[in-house]
Amino acid sequence: MTFTTQDHLMMQKAILLAKQGIYTTAPNPNVGCVLVKNGKIIGEGAHLKAGEPHAEVHALRQAGKEAQGATAYVTLEPCSHYGRTPPCAEGLIKAGVKKVICAMVDPNPQVAGRGLAMLDEAGIETASGLLEADARALNPHFLTRMETGKPFVQLKMAASLDGKTALKNGVSQWITSKEARQDVQRYRAQSGAILSTAKTVIDDDASLNVRWSDLPPSIQESYQQASIRQPMRFILDRQHSLTSDLKLFQASDEVVTISSQNTHPIGTSENHMQCRVDDGQLDLKEVVNKISRDFNVNHIWVEAGATLAASMINDNLVDELIIYLAPKLMGADGRSIINLIGLETMSEAIDLDIKDIRMVGKDIRITATIAR
Amino acid sequence: MTFTTQDHLMMQKAILLAKQGIYTTAPNPNVGCVLVKNGKIIGEGAHLKAGEPHAEVHALRQAGKEAQGATAYVTLEPCSHYGRTPPCAEGLIKAGVKKVICAMVDPNPQVAGRGLAMLDEAGIETASGLLEADARALNPHFLTRMETGKPFVQLKMAASLDGKTALKNGVSQWITSKEARQDVQRYRAQSGAILSTAKTVIDDDASLNVRWSDLPPSIQESYQQASIRQPMRFILDRQHSLTSDLKLFQASDEVVTISSQNTHPIGTSENHMQCRVDDGQLDLKEVVNKISRDFNVNHIWVEAGATLAASMINDNLVDELIIYLAPKLMGADGRSIINLIGLETMSEAIDLDIKDIRMVGKDIRITATIAR
Repeated sequence: MTFTTQDHLMMQKAILLAKQGIYTTAPNPNVGCVLVKNGKIIGEGAHLKAGEPHAEVHALRQAGKEAQGATAYVTLEPCSHYGRTPPCAEGLIKAGVKKVICAMVDPNPQVAGRGLAMLDEAGIETASGLLEADARALNPHFLTRMETGKPFVQLKMAASLDGKTALKNGVSQWITSKEARQDVQRYRAQSGAILSTAKTVIDDDASLNVRWSDLPPSIQESYQQASIRQPMRFILDRQHSLTSDLKLFQASDEVVTISSQNTHPIGTSENHMQCRVDDGQLDLKEVVNKISRDFNVNHIWVEAGATLAASMINDNLVDELIIYLAPKLMGADGRSIINLIGLETMSEAIDLDIKDIRMVGKDIRITATIAR
Repeated sequence: MTFTTQDHLMMQKAILLAKQGIYTTAPNPNVGCVLVKNGKIIGEGAHLKAGEPHAEVHALRQAGKEAQGATAYVTLEPCSHYGRTPPCAEGLIKAGVKKVICAMVDPNPQVAGRGLAMLDEAGIETASGLLEADARALNPHFLTRMETGKPFVQLKMAASLDGKTALKNGVSQWITSKEARQDVQRYRAQSGAILSTAKTVIDDDASLNVRWSDLPPSIQESYQQASIRQPMRFILDRQHSLTSDLKLFQASDEVVTISSQNTHPIGTSENHMQCRVDDGQLDLKEVVNKISRDFNVNHIWVEAGATLAASMINDNLVDELIIYLAPKLMGADGRSIINLIGLETMSEAIDLDIKDIRMVGKDIRITATIAR
């Protein structure tokens, strides 16, 4: 099928709508929908929050009876299954739309072409693939998990320009700028889960939550304080060193502690995850898989120290590194950004592919993947 | 004076011409000149090499008798002194030009307005300040030295993304890419002097010269192999450890060894510099000043290890850092990019201002200054 200029414009509009949900839809995908009849937009909608109406439902409600004979532009194939809401394909059929153009087929195994098939069977003209790359870019984490079965894992690291996280004596305050810390809040806000360690939580008395007031002003404009969504916080605590007086437990949002035991002194069994210990260390692959599978998480944001960073990389669990380098030199005897030791040849060094470099405030932010 | 659109266009042309000398004029400045009569260019020229004709001379020769009554556009005030060539102000007067517009006054104490004054006295209309910022950008090193009396010192550093120059066992081959090494050749080619240490020379058997074949292809296009200019090489060798079999001495170009002694086992007194020792170390401030003053050098490119880097920074001698970070993680026990130790508080860390970040091949190049 050949797409017209109007088709492109309408799908661009649907993609813009989808972006409204970028901080709120997880674990659901961002989806936008535009209904068009006789060249005019008669309904538009975006999916904003899991459990709330899908983009198509908002657009159909807005169009009302006008939807009869309209063309629907949707950034993702309409769903075919009963989840917390009825299938959108059914809604489009009932409303009498004539044609459905979507940007991409939904790789979710519960859909995977069945939405388009339902529409076809109902005699509705369908097409897919319009602005597919742009639509994919709306949902990198959702798509990774749907297509590979694994969550998208981002590892945050921060150091001075000479790779140090602290002086020899442990002093480390204010290495990175306010803007970099706001940028970290933005990544947290996009994630489904934050993974850290008891050591990081205790050392920094870190709450590891999203603070709306600390988000970059540009994000605050499009993401209202009322709609804030807190990612779940998962803390590796093999030695049961977390205590209930920590800031981490002050926020009402969920904390899941992880150890090799079945129960945990802090919480109830509901907020504890038991994991295998392998070679004296919690099995991180099992941790990542359990977070994703048991808690329906597409995107894990890992924020911890040099030891967990090294383990996550060595265990081949990192999809993307987000590295902040502050414009400072802290010296040869400072603490290193990554606890790798004992490399004997350069072939043992971890090779990265740099995907993006940019300034964030006075700091440099590097986005990289592990080169395979 | 108000400058016309034609004035701007002609000065832009003169600036383009000046750029032809960017790898060859040191220690002289890059200068371009355009002669215009009745709206037509009748002569153009650039200064290409110290000792060879200045830009104005080339342009006047091309114009011949037509120069009578013409307007001259020059990127730098015409010189007023007899150097290896006669003063250009005199040449312009003799040729009978009517008007001279220059982009900036020459801060060289030997000129400093006297060129314009000579022209004024001869009844020639003069003006200055047209596209001055662009003209200044042609000669950052020359201008720094003329305006401050000190050379422009660039410090090159290179490490992995975690700030390491070598593994614990010293292995360090191929940390940065071919493109980064070509970029280093480009900086060397622009410099008047390369400063390094006996340790670096011996460890790498480094020749520290400019190899035309290793310059980036984009530079080769505009810089012919025949016109290659070798910066002088200055090597700190307090312990007299350099030996004549090193590659450094194979190239015919000049090497100056530096120690606290009056003579040196390698060379003659002609290629040795004696410097004070202060606190067991050669006095780097004296080294830098002597290189600049005794050898007429505007721009020193420092290429050495973590120890000299730390000393140069601590002695407040660095105008700009050029830092290459290779996309690798080499581990916490590797060798650090800078030999600073013993910092007790974050206020002792060296703060930088990042001026530019960009990819050079697969590596990141960071241009920074020391924040004061």
